[in-house]
Amino acid sequence: METIGHFLDGLASAQPTPGGGGAAAISGAMGAALVSMVCNLTIGKKKYAAVEDELRQVLARAEDLRAALTGMIAEDVAAFDAVMGAYGLPKGTDDEKTARAAAIQVALRQATDVPLACCRACRAVIDLAEIVADKGNLNVISDAGVAVLSAHAGLRSAALNVYVNAKAIEDRAFAQSRLDELEDLLAGAGDLNETTYAVVKNKLV
Amino acid sequence: METIGHFLDGLASAQPTPGGGGAAAISGAMGAALVSMVCNLTIGKKKYAAVEDELRQVLARAEDLRAALTGMIAEDVAAFDAVMGAYGLPKGTDDEKTARAAAIQVALRQATDVPLACCRACRAVIDLAEIVADKGNLNVISDAGVAVLSAHAGLRSAALNVYVNAKAIEDRAFAQSRLDELEDLLAGAGDLNETTYAVVKNKLV
Repeated sequence: METIGHFLDGLASAQPTPGGGGAAAISGAMGAALVSMVCNLTIGKKKYAAVEDELRQVLARAEDLRAALTGMIAEDVAAFDAVMGAYGLPKGTDDEKTARAAAIQVALRQATDVPLACCRACRAVIDLAEIVADKGNLNVISDAGVAVLSAHAGLRSAALNVYVNAKAIEDRAFAQSRLDELEDLLAGAGDLNETTYAVVKNKLV
Repeated sequence: METIGHFLDGLASAQPTPGGGGAAAISGAMGAALVSMVCNLTIGKKKYAAVEDELRQVLARAEDLRAALTGMIAEDVAAFDAVMGAYGLPKGTDDEKTARAAAIQVALRQATDVPLACCRACRAVIDLAEIVADKGNLNVISDAGVAVLSAHAGLRSAALNVYVNAKAIEDRAFAQSRLDELEDLLAGAGDLNETTYAVVKNKLV
Protein backbone atom coordinates (compact mmCIF):
# COMPACT_ATOMS: atom_id res chain seq x y z
CA MET A 1 0.00 0.00 0.00
CA GLU A 2 1.22 3.49 -0.77
CA THR A 3 2.57 5.99 1.74
CA ILE A 4 0.48 8.80 3.20
CA GLY A 5 2.69 11.37 1.49
CA HIS A 6 2.35 9.67 -1.91
CA PHE A 7 -1.43 9.44 -1.52
CA LEU A 8 -1.61 13.16 -0.65
CA ASP A 9 0.59 14.03 -3.65
CA GLY A 10 -1.80 12.09 -5.89
CA LEU A 11 -4.81 13.75 -4.29
CA ALA A 12 -3.37 17.23 -4.89
CA SER A 13 -2.30 16.55 -8.49
CA ALA A 14 -4.20 17.22 -11.71
CA GLN A 15 -4.76 13.46 -12.04
CA PRO A 16 -8.45 12.73 -11.40
CA THR A 17 -7.70 9.80 -9.07
CA PRO A 18 -7.29 9.49 -6.20
CA GLY A 19 -9.97 12.08 -5.41
CA GLY A 20 -12.62 12.88 -2.87
CA GLY A 21 -13.93 9.31 -2.84
CA GLY A 22 -10.58 7.99 -1.62
CA ALA A 23 -10.36 10.75 0.98
CA ALA A 24 -13.86 9.77 2.19
CA ALA A 25 -12.78 6.13 2.60
CA ILE A 26 -9.68 7.18 4.56
CA SER A 27 -11.77 9.43 6.83
CA GLY A 28 -14.09 6.51 7.53
CA ALA A 29 -11.17 4.13 8.08
CA MET A 30 -9.55 6.57 10.54
CA GLY A 31 -12.86 6.77 12.40
CA ALA A 32 -13.07 2.98 12.61
CA ALA A 33 -9.43 2.73 13.71
CA LEU A 34 -10.01 5.26 16.51
CA VAL A 35 -13.07 3.35 17.72
CA SER A 36 -10.81 0.28 17.86
CA MET A 37 -8.12 2.25 19.73
CA VAL A 38 -10.56 3.31 22.44
CA CYS A 39 -11.80 -0.31 22.73
CA ASN A 40 -8.22 -1.63 22.92
CA LEU A 41 -7.39 0.84 25.70
CA THR A 42 -10.57 0.01 27.65
CA ILE A 43 -10.77 -3.79 27.40
CA GLY A 44 -8.84 -5.49 30.21
CA LYS A 45 -8.98 -2.53 32.62
CA LYS A 46 -10.62 -3.43 35.94
CA LYS A 47 -12.41 -0.07 36.11
CA TYR A 48 -14.21 -0.84 32.83
CA ALA A 49 -14.96 -4.53 33.43
CA ALA A 50 -18.72 -3.90 33.21
CA VAL A 51 -18.50 -2.76 29.57
CA GLU A 52 -15.78 -5.18 28.45
CA ASP A 53 -18.03 -7.68 26.67
CA GLU A 54 -19.87 -4.95 24.80
CA LEU A 55 -16.64 -3.23 23.74
CA ARG A 56 -15.19 -6.54 22.51
CA GLN A 57 -18.14 -6.73 20.12
CA VAL A 58 -17.70 -3.08 19.13
CA LEU A 59 -14.00 -3.75 18.46
CA ALA A 60 -14.76 -6.71 16.18
CA ARG A 61 -17.27 -4.66 14.19
CA ALA A 62 -14.94 -1.65 14.01
CA GLU A 63 -12.10 -3.80 12.68
CA ASP A 64 -14.37 -5.31 9.99
CA LEU A 65 -15.44 -1.80 8.98
CA ARG A 66 -11.84 -0.56 8.95
CA ALA A 67 -10.83 -3.38 6.59
CA ALA A 68 -13.79 -2.68 4.30
CA LEU A 69 -13.15 1.09 4.26
CA THR A 70 -9.43 0.65 3.63
CA GLY A 71 -10.30 -1.53 0.63
CA MET A 72 -12.61 1.19 -0.69
CA ILE A 73 -9.64 3.52 -1.30
CA ALA A 74 -8.69 1.33 -4.28
CA GLU A 75 -12.30 0.48 -5.19
CA ASP A 76 -13.05 4.18 -5.64
CA VAL A 77 -10.16 4.55 -8.10
CA ALA A 78 -11.27 1.44 -10.01
CA ALA A 79 -14.88 2.63 -10.21
CA PHE A 80 -13.83 6.06 -11.49
CA ASP A 81 -11.41 4.56 -14.02
CA ALA A 82 -14.18 2.26 -15.31
CA VAL A 83 -16.43 5.27 -15.96
CA MET A 84 -13.62 7.11 -17.76
CA GLY A 85 -12.81 3.94 -19.72
CA ALA A 86 -16.42 3.56 -20.83
CA TYR A 87 -16.59 7.19 -21.98
CA GLY A 88 -13.40 6.52 -23.98
CA LEU A 89 -14.91 3.60 -25.97
CA PRO A 90 -15.22 4.09 -29.76
CA LYS A 91 -18.41 5.69 -31.03
CA GLY A 92 -17.93 5.53 -34.82
CA THR A 93 -20.82 3.22 -35.71
CA ASP A 94 -24.33 2.86 -34.32
CA ASP A 95 -23.36 -0.49 -32.78
CA GLU A 96 -20.36 1.14 -31.10
CA LYS A 97 -22.53 3.98 -29.82
CA THR A 98 -25.02 1.52 -28.34
CA ALA A 99 -22.29 -0.57 -26.72
CA ARG A 100 -20.57 2.54 -25.35
CA ALA A 101 -23.77 3.96 -23.87
CA ALA A 102 -24.51 0.62 -22.18
CA ALA A 103 -20.96 0.38 -20.81
CA ILE A 104 -21.22 3.91 -19.39
CA GLN A 105 -24.44 3.00 -17.59
CA VAL A 106 -22.93 -0.17 -16.10
CA ALA A 107 -19.91 1.81 -14.89
CA LEU A 108 -22.07 4.60 -13.44
CA ARG A 109 -24.13 2.13 -11.42
CA GLN A 110 -20.91 0.70 -9.97
CA ALA A 111 -19.58 4.24 -9.35
CA THR A 112 -22.76 4.95 -7.36
CA ASP A 113 -22.70 1.72 -5.36
CA VAL A 114 -19.05 2.08 -4.27
CA PRO A 115 -19.50 5.46 -2.48
CA LEU A 116 -22.89 4.29 -1.16
CA ALA A 117 -21.12 1.34 0.48
CA CYS A 118 -18.67 3.87 1.95
CA CYS A 119 -21.63 5.87 3.34
CA ARG A 120 -23.09 2.70 4.87
CA ALA A 121 -19.80 1.81 6.55
CA CYS A 122 -19.21 5.37 7.81
CA ARG A 123 -22.70 5.49 9.30
CA ALA A 124 -21.96 2.21 11.12
CA VAL A 125 -18.72 3.73 12.46
CA ILE A 126 -20.66 6.77 13.75
CA ASP A 127 -23.00 4.43 15.64
CA LEU A 128 -20.01 2.62 17.20
CA ALA A 129 -18.30 5.92 18.08
CA GLU A 130 -21.40 6.92 20.03
CA ILE A 131 -21.02 3.77 22.16
CA VAL A 132 -17.29 4.26 22.88
CA ALA A 133 -17.80 7.97 23.63
CA ASP A 134 -20.31 6.88 26.27
CA LYS A 135 -18.47 3.86 27.69
CA GLY A 136 -14.79 4.02 26.71
CA ASN A 137 -11.73 4.75 28.86
CA LEU A 138 -11.88 8.41 29.91
CA ASN A 139 -8.13 8.80 29.34
CA VAL A 140 -8.60 8.40 25.58
CA ILE A 141 -12.13 9.72 25.21
CA SER A 142 -10.98 12.53 22.90
CA ASP A 143 -10.18 9.81 20.36
CA ALA A 144 -13.86 8.79 20.39
CA GLY A 145 -14.65 12.39 19.46
CA VAL A 146 -12.19 12.35 16.58
CA ALA A 147 -13.68 9.00 15.49
CA VAL A 148 -17.18 10.42 15.11
CA LEU A 149 -15.98 13.59 13.36
CA SER A 150 -13.89 11.58 10.88
CA ALA A 151 -16.65 9.08 10.12
CA HIS A 152 -19.23 11.84 9.69
CA ALA A 153 -16.96 13.72 7.28
CA GLY A 154 -16.45 10.42 5.40
CA LEU A 155 -20.21 9.84 5.20
CA ARG A 156 -20.99 13.29 3.79
CA SER A 157 -17.98 13.21 1.47
CA ALA A 158 -18.96 9.88 -0.08
CA ALA A 159 -22.54 11.16 -0.36
CA LEU A 160 -21.35 13.80 -2.84
CA ASN A 161 -20.06 11.06 -5.15
CA VAL A 162 -23.37 9.20 -4.89
CA TYR A 163 -25.17 12.38 -5.97
CA VAL A 164 -22.78 13.00 -8.90
CA ASN A 165 -23.05 9.51 -10.35
CA ALA A 166 -26.71 8.80 -9.58
CA LYS A 167 -27.64 11.94 -11.53
CA ALA A 168 -26.25 10.49 -14.79
CA ILE A 169 -27.93 7.08 -14.46
CA GLU A 170 -30.74 6.54 -16.97
CA ASP A 171 -32.43 3.80 -14.93
CA ARG A 172 -34.17 6.23 -12.59
CA ALA A 173 -35.64 3.47 -10.41
CA PHE A 174 -32.10 2.22 -9.73
CA ALA A 175 -30.84 5.75 -9.06
CA GLN A 176 -33.75 6.62 -6.80
CA SER A 177 -33.32 3.45 -4.72
CA ARG A 178 -29.71 4.49 -4.03
CA LEU A 179 -30.67 8.09 -3.24
CA ASP A 180 -33.38 6.82 -0.87
CA GLU A 181 -30.90 4.63 0.99
CA LEU A 182 -28.46 7.55 1.14
CA GLU A 183 -31.08 9.80 2.75
CA ASP A 184 -31.75 7.05 5.33
CA LEU A 185 -28.02 6.88 6.12
CA LEU A 186 -27.71 10.67 6.40
CA ALA A 187 -30.87 11.00 8.51
CA GLY A 188 -29.93 11.79 12.06
CA ALA A 189 -26.19 11.41 11.39
CA GLY A 190 -25.56 15.12 11.87
CA ASP A 191 -27.40 15.16 15.20
CA LEU A 192 -25.56 12.00 16.32
CA ASN A 193 -22.25 13.64 15.39
CA GLU A 194 -23.07 16.74 17.43
CA THR A 195 -24.41 14.90 20.48
CA THR A 196 -21.43 12.50 20.52
CA TYR A 197 -18.97 15.40 20.14
CA ALA A 198 -20.72 17.19 23.01
CA VAL A 199 -20.57 14.08 25.22
CA VAL A 200 -16.81 13.89 24.59
CA LYS A 201 -16.16 17.60 25.06
CA ASN A 202 -18.10 17.65 28.34
CA LYS A 203 -15.82 14.90 29.65
CA LEU A 204 -12.74 16.93 28.72
CA VAL A 205 -13.35 20.50 29.83
CA MET B 1 6.91 8.05 5.42
CA GLU B 2 4.75 5.15 6.53
CA THR B 3 1.98 3.55 4.50
CA ILE B 4 -1.69 4.35 5.00
CA GLY B 5 -2.32 0.79 6.18
CA HIS B 6 0.51 0.93 8.71
CA PHE B 7 -0.72 4.28 10.04
CA LEU B 8 -4.26 2.89 10.44
CA ASP B 9 -2.90 -0.21 12.22
CA GLY B 10 -1.06 2.06 14.66
CA LEU B 11 -4.14 4.24 15.12
CA ALA B 12 -6.30 1.19 15.96
CA SER B 13 -3.76 -0.38 18.34
CA ALA B 14 -3.48 -0.04 22.12
CA GLN B 15 -0.39 2.13 21.58
CA PRO B 16 -1.28 5.73 22.50
CA THR B 17 0.35 7.17 19.36
CA PRO B 18 -0.57 7.80 16.65
CA GLY B 19 -3.94 9.00 17.93
CA GLY B 20 -6.63 11.54 17.21
CA GLY B 21 -4.09 14.34 16.76
CA GLY B 22 -2.46 12.54 13.85
CA ALA B 23 -5.86 11.77 12.33
CA ALA B 24 -6.73 15.49 12.61
CA ALA B 25 -3.55 16.44 10.75
CA ILE B 26 -4.30 13.93 7.98
CA SER B 27 -7.87 15.23 7.65
CA GLY B 28 -6.51 18.75 7.28
CA ALA B 29 -3.84 17.64 4.81
CA MET B 30 -6.45 15.80 2.70
CA GLY B 31 -8.53 18.98 2.68
CA ALA B 32 -5.55 21.05 1.52
CA ALA B 33 -4.65 18.45 -1.13
CA LEU B 34 -8.21 18.51 -2.52
CA VAL B 35 -8.16 22.32 -2.70
CA SER B 36 -4.95 21.95 -4.71
CA MET B 37 -6.54 19.31 -6.95
CA VAL B 38 -9.45 21.58 -7.84
CA CYS B 39 -6.99 24.43 -8.55
CA ASN B 40 -4.80 22.16 -10.70
CA LEU B 41 -7.84 21.07 -12.74
CA THR B 42 -9.07 24.66 -13.18
CA ILE B 43 -5.86 26.57 -13.95
CA GLY B 44 -5.08 26.61 -17.69
CA LYS B 45 -8.68 25.97 -18.83
CA LYS B 46 -9.96 28.69 -21.14
CA LYS B 47 -13.42 28.62 -19.53
CA TYR B 48 -11.89 29.56 -16.16
CA ALA B 49 -9.33 32.14 -17.37
CA ALA B 50 -10.99 34.89 -15.31
CA VAL B 51 -10.22 33.13 -12.00
CA GLU B 52 -6.81 31.71 -12.97
CA ASP B 53 -4.67 34.28 -11.15
CA GLU B 54 -6.69 33.96 -7.97
CA LEU B 55 -6.59 30.15 -8.04
CA ARG B 56 -2.81 30.18 -8.60
CA GLN B 57 -2.54 32.05 -5.29
CA VAL B 58 -4.98 29.65 -3.63
CA LEU B 59 -2.91 26.71 -4.92
CA ALA B 60 0.33 28.12 -3.48
CA ARG B 61 -1.29 28.64 -0.07
CA ALA B 62 -2.95 25.22 -0.12
CA GLU B 63 0.37 23.52 -0.89
CA ASP B 64 2.09 25.37 1.98
CA LEU B 65 -0.72 24.28 4.31
CA ARG B 66 -0.56 20.68 3.06
CA ALA B 67 3.19 20.54 3.80
CA ALA B 68 2.67 22.00 7.27
CA LEU B 69 -0.23 19.66 8.08
CA THR B 70 1.65 16.61 6.82
CA GLY B 71 4.52 17.53 9.13
CA MET B 72 2.10 17.76 12.05
CA ILE B 73 1.41 14.00 11.89
CA ALA B 74 4.90 13.43 13.35
CA GLU B 75 4.83 16.57 15.51
CA ASP B 76 1.73 15.30 17.27
CA VAL B 77 3.46 12.02 18.15
CA ALA B 78 6.56 13.90 19.39
CA ALA B 79 4.47 16.27 21.53
CA PHE B 80 2.55 13.38 23.10
CA ASP B 81 5.72 11.38 23.71
CA ALA B 82 7.31 14.41 25.41
CA VAL B 83 4.37 14.65 27.84
CA MET B 84 4.57 10.92 28.60
CA GLY B 85 8.36 11.22 28.99
CA ALA B 86 7.99 14.07 31.46
CA TYR B 87 5.43 12.14 33.52
CA GLY B 88 7.95 9.26 33.59
CA LEU B 89 10.77 11.33 35.12
CA PRO B 90 11.99 10.28 38.59
CA LYS B 91 10.18 11.78 41.57
CA GLY B 92 12.17 10.38 44.52
CA THR B 93 13.56 13.64 45.92
CA ASP B 94 12.08 17.13 46.22
CA ASP B 95 14.48 18.36 43.55
CA GLU B 96 13.36 15.57 41.25
CA LYS B 97 9.72 16.37 41.95
CA THR B 98 10.28 20.05 41.12
CA ALA B 99 12.16 19.25 37.92
CA ARG B 100 9.53 16.72 36.87
CA ALA B 101 6.65 19.12 37.47
CA ALA B 102 8.41 21.81 35.43
CA ALA B 103 9.14 19.38 32.59
CA ILE B 104 5.49 18.29 32.52
CA GLN B 105 4.37 21.91 32.19
CA VAL B 106 6.83 22.61 29.35
CA ALA B 107 5.61 19.49 27.53
CA LEU B 108 1.94 20.36 28.07
CA ARG B 109 2.41 23.82 26.59
CA GLN B 110 3.98 22.24 23.50
CA ALA B 111 1.21 19.62 23.37
CA THR B 112 -1.32 22.49 23.34
CA ASP B 113 0.47 24.56 20.70
CA VAL B 114 0.87 21.66 18.23
CA PRO B 115 -2.88 20.92 17.89
CA LEU B 116 -3.61 24.66 17.98
CA ALA B 117 -1.33 25.08 14.95
CA CYS B 118 -3.30 22.24 13.32
CA CYS B 119 -6.55 24.13 14.04
CA ARG B 120 -5.09 27.31 12.52
CA ALA B 121 -4.04 25.47 9.35
CA CYS B 122 -7.38 23.62 9.03
CA ARG B 123 -9.27 26.89 9.38
CA ALA B 124 -7.15 28.37 6.58
CA VAL B 125 -7.96 25.33 4.41
CA ILE B 126 -11.69 25.85 5.06
CA ASP B 127 -11.37 29.45 3.85
CA LEU B 128 -9.59 28.27 0.67
CA ALA B 129 -12.18 25.52 0.09
CA GLU B 130 -14.90 28.16 0.12
CA ILE B 131 -13.12 29.96 -2.75
CA VAL B 132 -12.64 26.84 -4.90
CA ALA B 133 -16.22 25.69 -4.26
CA ASP B 134 -17.32 29.04 -5.67
CA LYS B 135 -14.86 29.39 -8.56
CA GLY B 136 -13.35 25.98 -9.36
CA ASN B 137 -13.92 23.69 -12.33
CA LEU B 138 -17.49 22.36 -12.13
CA ASN B 139 -16.32 18.89 -13.23
CA VAL B 140 -14.47 18.40 -9.95
CA ILE B 141 -16.54 20.59 -7.68
CA SER B 142 -17.45 17.62 -5.44
CA ASP B 143 -13.78 17.55 -4.42
CA ALA B 144 -14.14 21.11 -3.07
CA GLY B 145 -16.98 19.78 -0.91
CA VAL B 146 -14.84 16.93 0.41
CA ALA B 147 -12.06 19.47 1.05
CA VAL B 148 -14.20 21.59 3.36
CA LEU B 149 -15.64 18.58 5.20
CA SER B 150 -12.17 17.10 5.79
CA ALA B 151 -10.65 20.38 6.96
CA HIS B 152 -13.59 21.08 9.27
CA ALA B 153 -13.32 17.59 10.82
CA GLY B 154 -9.57 18.23 11.25
CA LEU B 155 -10.23 21.57 12.97
CA ARG B 156 -12.71 20.17 15.47
CA SER B 157 -10.61 17.04 16.04
CA ALA B 158 -7.47 19.02 16.86
CA ALA B 159 -9.57 21.30 19.09
CA LEU B 160 -10.26 18.34 21.39
CA ASN B 161 -6.51 17.93 21.98
CA VAL B 162 -6.17 21.64 22.73
CA TYR B 163 -8.92 21.30 25.36
CA VAL B 164 -7.32 18.20 26.94
CA ASN B 165 -3.85 19.68 27.30
CA ALA B 166 -4.81 23.28 28.12
CA LYS B 167 -6.83 21.98 31.06
CA ALA B 168 -3.70 20.60 32.78
CA ILE B 169 -1.57 23.73 32.30
CA GLU B 170 -0.90 25.62 35.54
CA ASP B 171 -0.10 28.91 33.80
CA ARG B 172 -3.75 29.85 33.29
CA ALA B 173 -2.93 33.01 31.32
CA PHE B 174 -1.05 30.87 28.79
CA ALA B 175 -3.86 28.31 28.66
CA GLN B 176 -6.57 30.96 28.31
CA SER B 177 -4.71 32.72 25.47
CA ARG B 178 -4.72 29.41 23.55
CA LEU B 179 -8.38 28.70 24.33
CA ASP B 180 -9.28 32.23 23.20
CA GLU B 181 -7.49 31.75 19.88
CA LEU B 182 -9.19 28.37 19.49
CA GLU B 183 -12.62 29.91 19.92
CA ASP B 184 -11.74 32.52 17.27
CA LEU B 185 -10.73 29.72 14.88
CA LEU B 186 -13.91 27.73 15.57
CA ALA B 187 -16.18 30.79 15.32
CA GLY B 188 -18.13 30.64 12.10
CA ALA B 189 -16.28 27.54 10.86
CA GLY B 190 -19.38 25.36 11.23
CA ASP B 191 -21.51 27.82 9.25
CA LEU B 192 -18.80 28.12 6.58
CA ASN B 193 -18.65 24.33 6.33
CA GLU B 194 -22.43 24.10 5.85
CA THR B 195 -22.70 26.95 3.35
CA THR B 196 -19.77 25.64 1.31
CA TYR B 197 -21.20 22.11 1.33
CA ALA B 198 -24.56 23.51 0.20
CA VAL B 199 -22.92 25.50 -2.63
CA VAL B 200 -21.24 22.29 -3.85
CA LYS B 201 -24.33 20.09 -3.48
CA ASN B 202 -26.48 22.61 -5.37
CA LYS B 203 -24.05 22.42 -8.29
CA LEU B 204 -24.29 18.60 -8.31
CA VAL B 205 -27.96 17.71 -7.97
